[in-house]
Amino acid sequence: MKAEIIAVGSELLLGQINNTNARYISSGLAEIGVDVHFQTVVGDNAARLEDAIRIAEDRADLLIFTGGLGPTKDDLTKETIARHAGKQLVYDDAALRSITAWFERAGRTMTDNNRKQALVLDGSTVLENRHGMAPGMLASSDGRHYLLMPGPPKEMEPMFTEQAKPLIARLAGEGGRILSRVLRFYGIGEAELEHRLSDLLDRQTNPTLAPLASDGEVTIRMTAKTESREEAVALLDRSESEIRKIAGEYIYGYDDETLPSKAASMLIGHNLTIAAAESLTAGLFMSELAEQPGISAAMAGGVVTYTAEAKTAQLGIPADFLEEHGVVSEETAAAMASSVLAKFSTDFGVGLTGAAGPDPHGGQPGGTVWIAIARRGGTMETKKLLLSGMRNTNRIRAVKSALHTLIRMINEMTAPEI
Amino acid sequence: MKAEIIAVGSELLLGQINNTNARYISSGLAEIGVDVHFQTVVGDNAARLEDAIRIAEDRADLLIFTGGLGPTKDDLTKETIARHAGKQLVYDDAALRSITAWFERAGRTMTDNNRKQALVLDGSTVLENRHGMAPGMLASSDGRHYLLMPGPPKEMEPMFTEQAKPLIARLAGEGGRILSRVLRFYGIGEAELEHRLSDLLDRQTNPTLAPLASDGEVTIRMTAKTESREEAVALLDRSESEIRKIAGEYIYGYDDETLPSKAASMLIGHNLTIAAAESLTAGLFMSELAEQPGISAAMAGGVVTYTAEAKTAQLGIPADFLEEHGVVSEETAAAMASSVLAKFSTDFGVGLTGAAGPDPHGGQPGGTVWIAIARRGGTMETKKLLLSGMRNTNRIRAVKSALHTLIRMINEMTAPEI
Repeated sequence: MKAEIIAVGSELLLGQINNTNARYISSGLAEIGVDVHFQTVVGDNAARLEDAIRIAEDRADLLIFTGGLGPTKDDLTKETIARHAGKQLVYDDAALRSITAWFERAGRTMTDNNRKQALVLDGSTVLENRHGMAPGMLASSDGRHYLLMPGPPKEMEPMFTEQAKPLIARLAGEGGRILSRVLRFYGIGEAELEHRLSDLLDRQTNPTLAPLASDGEVTIRMTAKTESREEAVALLDRSESEIRKIAGEYIYGYDDETLPSKAASMLIGHNLTIAAAESLTAGLFMSELAEQPGISAAMAGGVVTYTAEAKTAQLGIPADFLEEHGVVSEETAAAMASSVLAKFSTDFGVGLTGAAGPDPHGGQPGGTVWIAIARRGGTMETKKLLLSGMRNTNRIRAVKSALHTLIRMINEMTAPEI
Repeated sequence: MKAEIIAVGSELLLGQINNTNARYISSGLAEIGVDVHFQTVVGDNAARLEDAIRIAEDRADLLIFTGGLGPTKDDLTKETIARHAGKQLVYDDAALRSITAWFERAGRTMTDNNRKQALVLDGSTVLENRHGMAPGMLASSDGRHYLLMPGPPKEMEPMFTEQAKPLIARLAGEGGRILSRVLRFYGIGEAELEHRLSDLLDRQTNPTLAPLASDGEVTIRMTAKTESREEAVALLDRSESEIRKIAGEYIYGYDDETLPSKAASMLIGHNLTIAAAESLTAGLFMSELAEQPGISAAMAGGVVTYTAEAKTAQLGIPADFLEEHGVVSEETAAAMASSVLAKFSTDFGVGLTGAAGPDPHGGQPGGTVWIAIARRGGTMETKKLLLSGMRNTNRIRAVKSALHTLIRMINEMTAPEI
């Protein structure tokens, strides 16, 4: 079964809101093995909507509409579909009762416009709106299916997941299982990764392998279609092990794991503590870790020393040391890391200093970053980054790189002796 | 001129990401009076992409593509357009130089895949990618225009606004004017704001008024359509002053201003300095301020004291004080604010402590937050929040509330005497 999602609403074409409904529905359809080949957005205009319907009927079995079910004159989705498919609009008693009750509760006068919201395509399965007024509906005509849902995500999302998705899964029949697994990479570019995996990518069929780059990370989504969950897991395992042979050292996690969540769970799991001294990142490293529940067991705190004076006053790094080495230097990053480790008596001390950009800072061009991670007992790792992004991108990349180095260090120190 | 936006990428059809590019571009086109009648999303599939191009050519003069310009085999936007329009792909020297330089800086190996990114449609105007590798391009053929831009929003957004939009405005000539202005509210809910403005919202025609809520803030986008820019500005001014009469006290900014950008520009503009002591927000307050260029003139730094021990050791708040009042209390927030102000000798000291949730902390239920802002000289403002969101939402709301209080305090102290 192939589906097309048609969002109706001029506010989308004016760029006032994102079409988050398309993402939500697509993601739900992927879970039940229904392919989406196109998403379309059209305004509140009957002629253009009918064009979109005609085009979609040529390329999809299931047309999913969001929006245009409201009470106003601009709302014309069901009217247009009724005319196009030669169907009548009839009042749905349950919907009419629920709308009437809503107006009674609110003490407001119900108008004919509101009554219009209870009209549904004759012969359709009506989907109750548990968070608003306009009901949804699923109609069929000439072997094609038409699902209509309201536009507001608060109304659409539960209606789709609770009511429409199970109906579609039944329509789509038992076409087997779709199972996805996402592998998360850090430290390798998308092009380089695809280059290394090109043989695998060329002969991919089941599972399919879809690489995606974002914010300095690359993911590969593996999607297997099989008769049973066990077969799907086996296919995914086999592909993962092939990928690991080629680029395993860059894989840091699965699915929804992130660098902060992985680092936090490793710190907490190994009873390790951490503090950070941040300059260009100004608290972002600590804040990302603090998003993770339970982090107070591992993170004592830290300091933000944005200026050179603060590095001297708060971290005790002598002014002539900063003068000699520069505030953006390996030496300063290392001094920040050692100082904050001592100050907070933690297992790890992180130092982050750099020129976020666009302007140079401390004699270094924008994008230069030094990261230092000190371990209790004296070990120190340092790393230099030369970033070319915008100010905030560079700050985020610096944090990710520090988290990745931290994950590697914990891995190394906690790996079982052979 | 009518435009259609075609986003290319299977990750969109799988529901992995939102098509935020369509919103961004549509909103920019509305500002220069170019109508968007359709937005389309198609996967990484040459045949289906060519179908989408054919359909769009029937209904638009300007086809805007995002995505599919990357180095991988899946990236086939320019190849498909070249074949469809009978154009050659040629290497752009500047793009090739910039890609080569990027790999040299990063010390990574450049592959043939990467070189492919420097190919452009013969005869097109090349748009420099200042934040990534793939250049954009604007080509014309048979009276139709084809704008190709990369998919990552960080690359696409500046390329569109700085380079493509002015070119399109010139192509579109002088039609009617569409002008938008966004008013940004804090401290009032969407329903309450709409209720207060219901008369205005009911009789809106020109400008139209579109309220939108997100992350604890509400915006109203006013959009005027007129013959001249002056008329549009006059209409927007009139509506803004009507809105200000009713809910002016909640307006903190315009358009792309945010609470951090507003607070940063006020601090910098008035030569005021700030430091923060953060517990539940763990650096997020400072990090949000540090996103703003030039902030080093205003922000010295601060401390993250996540644990009670850190509050004692780093801020000198006696353990028995914390014991007596609790770590989540007005007294502790105020002590954090005063201490960090003294430690960094700034004009403002901010203290943030609370139970981010979901679990209670310091004897207070999850969602309890205390904010204190101390001014040099002794004035102190405190504020309690009872939030019901998830852990990270609560941390973001706490930061927003602190920024909003700071903005109000700066406004009050810098307002001219009457």
